[in-house]
Amino acid sequence: MVRRAASEGGERRPTTIRDVAAHAGVSVATVSRILSGSYPSAPATRSKVMKAVRELDYVANANARNLAGASSRSVAIIVNSVVSPHYAHVAQGVQAQAALEGKLCIVGTTGGDPERELATVQLMRQEHAECVILVGNVVNNDAYRERMADYARALAAAGSQLVLCGRPTLGPDVPALVVEYDNTGGAYAITSHLLSAGHRRILFLGRHEGYTTSDSRITGYRNALADHRVPHDPGLEADGTMERSEGYRMIRERLAAGPPDFTAVFAGNDLIAAGARQALREHGLRVPDDVSMVGFDDLPPAADIDLTTVHVPHEELGRTAVRLALERGQDKAAPAQHVLLGTHIIVRDSVRPIRPDLG
Amino acid sequence: MVRRAASEGGERRPTTIRDVAAHAGVSVATVSRILSGSYPSAPATRSKVMKAVRELDYVANANARNLAGASSRSVAIIVNSVVSPHYAHVAQGVQAQAALEGKLCIVGTTGGDPERELATVQLMRQEHAECVILVGNVVNNDAYRERMADYARALAAAGSQLVLCGRPTLGPDVPALVVEYDNTGGAYAITSHLLSAGHRRILFLGRHEGYTTSDSRITGYRNALADHRVPHDPGLEADGTMERSEGYRMIRERLAAGPPDFTAVFAGNDLIAAGARQALREHGLRVPDDVSMVGFDDLPPAADIDLTTVHVPHEELGRTAVRLALERGQDKAAPAQHVLLGTHIIVRDSVRPIRPDLG
Repeated sequence: MVRRAASEGGERRPTTIRDVAAHAGVSVATVSRILSGSYPSAPATRSKVMKAVRELDYVANANARNLAGASSRSVAIIVNSVVSPHYAHVAQGVQAQAALEGKLCIVGTTGGDPERELATVQLMRQEHAECVILVGNVVNNDAYRERMADYARALAAAGSQLVLCGRPTLGPDVPALVVEYDNTGGAYAITSHLLSAGHRRILFLGRHEGYTTSDSRITGYRNALADHRVPHDPGLEADGTMERSEGYRMIRERLAAGPPDFTAVFAGNDLIAAGARQALREHGLRVPDDVSMVGFDDLPPAADIDLTTVHVPHEELGRTAVRLALERGQDKAAPAQHVLLGTHIIVRDSVRPIRPDLG
Repeated sequence: MVRRAASEGGERRPTTIRDVAAHAGVSVATVSRILSGSYPSAPATRSKVMKAVRELDYVANANARNLAGASSRSVAIIVNSVVSPHYAHVAQGVQAQAALEGKLCIVGTTGGDPERELATVQLMRQEHAECVILVGNVVNNDAYRERMADYARALAAAGSQLVLCGRPTLGPDVPALVVEYDNTGGAYAITSHLLSAGHRRILFLGRHEGYTTSDSRITGYRNALADHRVPHDPGLEADGTMERSEGYRMIRERLAAGPPDFTAVFAGNDLIAAGARQALREHGLRVPDDVSMVGFDDLPPAADIDLTTVHVPHEELGRTAVRLALERGQDKAAPAQHVLLGTHIIVRDSVRPIRPDLG
């Protein structure tokens, strides 16, 4: 095995890009092009260069990259947690598109802590990430918008790009790209699906006032009720967050308080649906024979519990975020874009029609 | 809002740690301590400092960090994909422990490409990650071991630390920490659970020769058969990878070839089980009434399909990896550790006893 330069004991000069080129038998420009991730390059050449990089333990530093005039090499996505299938599938789209574009993908996780979010954005900026993608549910208040505007300007000043994914726009003055999906339209469509099957008492699980995702889904639910001239009963909206355990809790508490006063459940997402279904079963109620149910997301566990739900194009959100950011990286003068991706219903076996005079 | 230094147009000197300290009304040492992540610090002080950092758009660079004598601030985990619940839950453990230790957590994703893995390890090293954790299923051949030994030595030379998680040890000469879990023991226990219920023809789904995870699970399966004096039938081992679609495919192909010649299925993981269950249902076979089934992992979708399975302590794997790496960071002379975490059966409702003379 080739000995590396920076081993313990005697100091040697650091390996340079010239050493790598010589070792691989290619030009410095070729090494630079391959390391910068500006594809395409012949697989055999890439192999040779990567082998030399490994054998010489070469670390391309920011300085070397700048000297070579190479672009930066990574795209970054920042999420609360990778355990949530919602975040994980958006991150998967980011990873897939990054791979296509010859970039690395790094994921920062914050556990929902704004200070860790700030520190992670700074780390990504130091690392010269070409874009930093922030995903998901937020409280859209002044403090949030100011924090995002700060990030957007700081990243733009460093030649990078903030992308908000599944979050509302910050307005024309802030240099952020926005890739949203149609939460309200999806909720409207799936509520209409239940209404068309004759359901009038539809329990919404997962109201979380002030949070963008829940607010826009409940807006779609209420709009559909109004358009179908079904009175809105605020008692049919249960407060809770977007977790499986919360779906379980909301149904348990409701059934402990009295017999079911609903014929269908609109779970704020598929995880809530899975938890709610378990609580219903423990109470002797089957889906869809006794209670109809729909969800939102079309992610695991929707297929396993045969759930009719709203398909959200999670991976496409991630891919679009990367694509738009890299395009804009080429043309700084282009206006910041705001893209809205569509949603649609996936019909499985969790809804039964009832007579319209019930409820 | 405070104007920041590095805006477009006129150049100004970069913000320093002294500016941040002055703006926050605290000492430089306090800023340094807080930015380095060496907690604890009073929440009010942290708030003031982080506000100043944000308002002055301060980027702590590697140089500043070294001058301040502060330790590095992040732990890194590299996975093929964050969509796999296995990887996601280990990453969640890494994130949780990193937060406890006051570190950032970054996740590199490679899509399974060794070149992207190499480039990601290098990126993490440049970023001075305190440890780099690699997770999961591999082909344990010479090329793999040499690549890992290269990483381990390069990271050690940079003051960082390689941790292999759910992978075999590289031997005493390589400065890598190893955190494994008991794959073979778990597979032995769950096979014995089926054998004790009278099953003799147990179909193993997900043989993938050469891959460490599959190999160790099938070893546990074969050992249990041998100890229970049940003849080993290689025809009852179906080749496939660890995905839901593969579970579906393996059962479809098997049932297309003839009537079921098994009374129970040991799915190589819970995803395979979910896919296999769907294929069985489409063939009119219910779990557990017609066919018993067990899985491995105890991750979603196990609870939703009521699957008896082997619990793998995924989050504990991640937490232990971070804990060991940071401990070793304090004491470089300590020998590299090799930890094996236990696994155990979670009993749900997917196994029925049969008469021992069947099969």
